[in-house]
Amino acid sequence: MRSTIPVRNADDLSLAYTPGVARVCTAIADNPELAYDYTWTSRVVAVVTDGTAVLGLGDIGPAASMPVMEGKSLLFKEFAGLDSVPIALNCTDVEEIVDTVAAMAPSFGGINLEDISAPRCFEIEDRLRAALDIPVFHDDQHGTAIVALAALTNAARLVGKPLSELRAVVAGAGASGIAVSRILVEAGIGDLALSDSKGLVYQGRDGLNPAKEKIAAITNKAGLTGSTEEALRGADVFVGLSGSTVQESCVATMAEDAIVFALSNPTPEVPPEVARRHARVVATGRSDFPNQINNVLAFPGIFRGALDVRAHSITEGMKLAAATALAGIVGDDLTADYVIPGPFDARVAPAVADAVAAQARAEGVNRV
Amino acid sequence: MRSTIPVRNADDLSLAYTPGVARVCTAIADNPELAYDYTWTSRVVAVVTDGTAVLGLGDIGPAASMPVMEGKSLLFKEFAGLDSVPIALNCTDVEEIVDTVAAMAPSFGGINLEDISAPRCFEIEDRLRAALDIPVFHDDQHGTAIVALAALTNAARLVGKPLSELRAVVAGAGASGIAVSRILVEAGIGDLALSDSKGLVYQGRDGLNPAKEKIAAITNKAGLTGSTEEALRGADVFVGLSGSTVQESCVATMAEDAIVFALSNPTPEVPPEVARRHARVVATGRSDFPNQINNVLAFPGIFRGALDVRAHSITEGMKLAAATALAGIVGDDLTADYVIPGPFDARVAPAVADAVAAQARAEGVNRV
Repeated sequence: MRSTIPVRNADDLSLAYTPGVARVCTAIADNPELAYDYTWTSRVVAVVTDGTAVLGLGDIGPAASMPVMEGKSLLFKEFAGLDSVPIALNCTDVEEIVDTVAAMAPSFGGINLEDISAPRCFEIEDRLRAALDIPVFHDDQHGTAIVALAALTNAARLVGKPLSELRAVVAGAGASGIAVSRILVEAGIGDLALSDSKGLVYQGRDGLNPAKEKIAAITNKAGLTGSTEEALRGADVFVGLSGSTVQESCVATMAEDAIVFALSNPTPEVPPEVARRHARVVATGRSDFPNQINNVLAFPGIFRGALDVRAHSITEGMKLAAATALAGIVGDDLTADYVIPGPFDARVAPAVADAVAAQARAEGVNRV
Repeated sequence: MRSTIPVRNADDLSLAYTPGVARVCTAIADNPELAYDYTWTSRVVAVVTDGTAVLGLGDIGPAASMPVMEGKSLLFKEFAGLDSVPIALNCTDVEEIVDTVAAMAPSFGGINLEDISAPRCFEIEDRLRAALDIPVFHDDQHGTAIVALAALTNAARLVGKPLSELRAVVAGAGASGIAVSRILVEAGIGDLALSDSKGLVYQGRDGLNPAKEKIAAITNKAGLTGSTEEALRGADVFVGLSGSTVQESCVATMAEDAIVFALSNPTPEVPPEVARRHARVVATGRSDFPNQINNVLAFPGIFRGALDVRAHSITEGMKLAAATALAGIVGDDLTADYVIPGPFDARVAPAVADAVAAQARAEGVNRV
């Protein structure tokens, strides 16, 4: 960190600290909105985890999760010029996490939740969104969802099928699988079936947790009840977020011009070169294949845009606007191997930020 | 903030973030002490408040307290090169504050508590010290105490009275008054009477809170029970931390070569020019008079020293060592107007840090 002002002598000191600072405190006490102008809160994001779902490593605890949070902070800075503070919490109880983050919220302009296991992550995010009037964003859900939607928008354009006529299968009902399903439904996909380790998720299935119950209510209009493999027969789109394996023979049963997003890392559900034998467009989570679905395309610009207008929250509309902006960057350069920009495309973060800020203003969730 | 490493291409990205970062996480999961080497926790202090006792402004809440916390972070950086994160909490319940700070502790190398009202601050600090194995330090207590002890050590040397023969009166039984009393007793002062708004504090006085009961048990050996003014008659030392007023006629009743520390800000208990008519040494909390008792002489070096040896805590011995080192800087230049170094004396923070680190090693509370 570095200071934004110098402290060279007693005058500097008495201005930056007591007694001078008292006037700033008093002004904010009289008008809390001034905190945006006179403190760092307007430009600092807290990157918060409880260390329960770190990368593919699982519940490794707060100390061991810090390198990922620091890496995330690095990306906020490098890709959007945003300052952020990595905070790994030594508690896993939903109530405690909500209370802790809510307690520290006055110090920050936004909260990026990270690597918190499902289904706890859904309740934690929902409750923090309700409790706080600053952006709260669980990146494992929405970052992946936004980038996947952007890539699918372009893939659908390439194969000449409107989104509203696509039937998709999403394997994996964790944080990202549920969020991808939700945003695809919001974007108007024709139908979508989500599967977990017990098969397809449908309304009325025994033992669904609340998050799966909610997603069951808005997906699987066809009422499919079998396995992922059965659902793939004739499907237009497969999105893998499960860490499981899909056989080549299953991919071969998909519709013509199929779209396969095999996003598990480091091992995609189906090797991309195998998928390409049967699918028109293939994307993965890896940097060594074309079409990388990488969260870094979303979260820096999302928070940059939200903080630029001092948004109260990040709405579904702002997420959709981010995806649209991200898809739009590809433009006329669209090919089967280029449905999504690369992570170092300098146009990405500004385009996403502008779209998010404009949408926030359109919805009136902005402060400036 | 700035990044310590560049992210220019896919290789940098895959090293700083996934998949490369997973190896760092795994290493820390296997050996938590590695967090000191591989994350920022070894060099970052959390500056935590609940906004209940901000400067002389009182309970102005978390948002309005942020400028002071940011100023403190600035001073950590400028005076000791330490990074820190200002965190203002939106809760005032002791239990909630302890839980919140304990939950976020894995992200930091030390906790500097700030501007938390008494007597809550005592319990909060005690419980966090017990719960955490990193330094926890309430600066309003110990910063003031350490600098006051250093100044008094030199003042006593100047007037030729050993500390063990001094009788002191401390007005004000808040965070700083109690901490100053405690460290003076630990340093071996002859006797010391502390007063609050109801007069002198003594064992058995009705309605003492736990913090005052504890300090009553180790002070006021003479068993004085009257007013501050009565106690001042014949006293060698007065330390004002009460925001109240002491009449010139009272100062005149003190012992020969009296020492007056009128530390309330912005208005000292007695104007320094008035006190000087009767006292040999006068100190204030203000920068526009000689002998400023300023916390910035202590906290940067204290945390620097504690973090340098990755101390488990900041012990009483480390605080005394800091005071001794701070007093020692004055050396042969000692005069009535120079019993404590100025805040911009570049020798201060390194000398305090070295003494604190050496003492930590001597007591075995260091990790390296």
